[in-house]
Amino acid sequence: MSPKKIRPASAWRADPSALLRVEQGFVLADVDPDAPPGFDGGKAEGKAELLADAQLLSDKQERLFAASKGGAPDAVLLVLQAMDTAGKGGIVRHVVGAVDPQGVALTAFKAPTEEELSHDFLWRIERRVPDPGFIGVFDRSHYEDVLIGQVRHLAEEAEIERRFDAILDFESRLVDRSIRVVKVMLQISPDEQKRRLAERLDRPDKHWKFNTGDIDERQLWPDYQAAYQDVLERTSTEAAPWFVVPANHKWYARVAVQRLLLNALTAIDPQWPTADFDVEEQKARLEASSVEAVRA
Amino acid sequence: MSPKKIRPASAWRADPSALLRVEQGFVLADVDPDAPPGFDGGKAEGKAELLADAQLLSDKQERLFAASKGGAPDAVLLVLQAMDTAGKGGIVRHVVGAVDPQGVALTAFKAPTEEELSHDFLWRIERRVPDPGFIGVFDRSHYEDVLIGQVRHLAEEAEIERRFDAILDFESRLVDRSIRVVKVMLQISPDEQKRRLAERLDRPDKHWKFNTGDIDERQLWPDYQAAYQDVLERTSTEAAPWFVVPANHKWYARVAVQRLLLNALTAIDPQWPTADFDVEEQKARLEASSVEAVRA
Repeated sequence: MSPKKIRPASAWRADPSALLRVEQGFVLADVDPDAPPGFDGGKAEGKAELLADAQLLSDKQERLFAASKGGAPDAVLLVLQAMDTAGKGGIVRHVVGAVDPQGVALTAFKAPTEEELSHDFLWRIERRVPDPGFIGVFDRSHYEDVLIGQVRHLAEEAEIERRFDAILDFESRLVDRSIRVVKVMLQISPDEQKRRLAERLDRPDKHWKFNTGDIDERQLWPDYQAAYQDVLERTSTEAAPWFVVPANHKWYARVAVQRLLLNALTAIDPQWPTADFDVEEQKARLEASSVEAVRA
Repeated sequence: MSPKKIRPASAWRADPSALLRVEQGFVLADVDPDAPPGFDGGKAEGKAELLADAQLLSDKQERLFAASKGGAPDAVLLVLQAMDTAGKGGIVRHVVGAVDPQGVALTAFKAPTEEELSHDFLWRIERRVPDPGFIGVFDRSHYEDVLIGQVRHLAEEAEIERRFDAILDFESRLVDRSIRVVKVMLQISPDEQKRRLAERLDRPDKHWKFNTGDIDERQLWPDYQAAYQDVLERTSTEAAPWFVVPANHKWYARVAVQRLLLNALTAIDPQWPTADFDVEEQKARLEASSVEAVRA
């Protein structure tokens, strides 16, 4: 009954890693949240691509995990940032959810607790850096400390500057430890956000996803966009680049982030580790441990 | 392109929760690891059932998560124990992997670290108890402390006794906190373990899953079976029962554990929480926060 998986021809016409990457001179306001850069198709083709590549992502994740057992230091860290309703949760569910949960370390960062506030802002972040072999996922991240920090004036300008420096240092240390950092901002339009918030209000089974604060934050849209522009300009580095993913179409955002992850894993090119034991010797030991011997 | 999901008639002829539950007088040696209790079909039907119920499990998990946002205390804790190669990893990947990773808290317990050893054995366990709304999964658990503890004589008899008491106390506290505890032992035969270990040795892409210690533990099969018998007899309580799942057929073990989880969620019967805000008022606020207003 297991359906045969036939890989359809990919609908990618260009690599989204190149198209979506934040380079010098990037202007967030120029991003069209409705566009599907590099993808030659619509929702149906997007969903088919997501399904077809899920197994590939899963296979590469298993190799990454296996390689770490042989001592390879590599890991991946996917950082997700966006305005409310932009679809971070859908990325986690539909992209990350396709790989073995045993190889994923997901953290959803909320407003910091008292204990977290008693430490520097990176303290809680450092604790959640993925171990070798893992795909770490940050649903929100240390970037909140320079985004909401700026927009809501939660910190002085000098403190925000200090945090920017600390973030650049921190990420460069991650890269030195062979952690590939893939930073994604999902970009939706204010109109699309309105539609999504309206749906949450219309459907009783979606009320739990709605917070009155979402509308407060929405009122600050231009301020957040300015803060994101600042973050994207200052922290998209060669080693830890940002990708801005148009996200008015959920199918596009998902397939694009899947491809970014696939590219990161392809760049690592994890290999099955070689046995640290004598295979023939262990085969002989196993053979000797027959049922009779075991039950003896 | 998204395939229509047609729910085939279920192949369950009896509820595995009743059939697999450890009741008074249970004898582990009487369990046939090849049998598929309650299931009327083979591998094909098992895989179809797993696929068909994955969406159901995912839907119920979302409700559990949503309910917690409205203050419901409920959570589920799945405890997985077994001899090596019995398929704990496959359960995590193929059963738990079908639900939103955002609602799962998975912990794979390894040999305790120095820090963990400096605390009582339940210290590291307590820290990983699932929060309300979550499905917690323990891949190995506090039961190792009475299993390997006994078999390898890592602790005195009095200490083992103390641990049994502590475990019963601990689990009863979990149940008081509305955490449904589903304890599963996957039971394979020594022959099946031999086949699976041999496969790991035969395939270079499986070598990383093999540890020479697996054969050492295998030699102690009868001792482990006796220790499991002891654990099952003494800790299968009304509130936190054990289920012994025949696992020579991976497809059966997966569909059975899926059903045990579904039953736990059905018993909780989580409901969408009611809005803690005035829906009409928020709709009006959202309407007023038009794109123009936002961009103003």
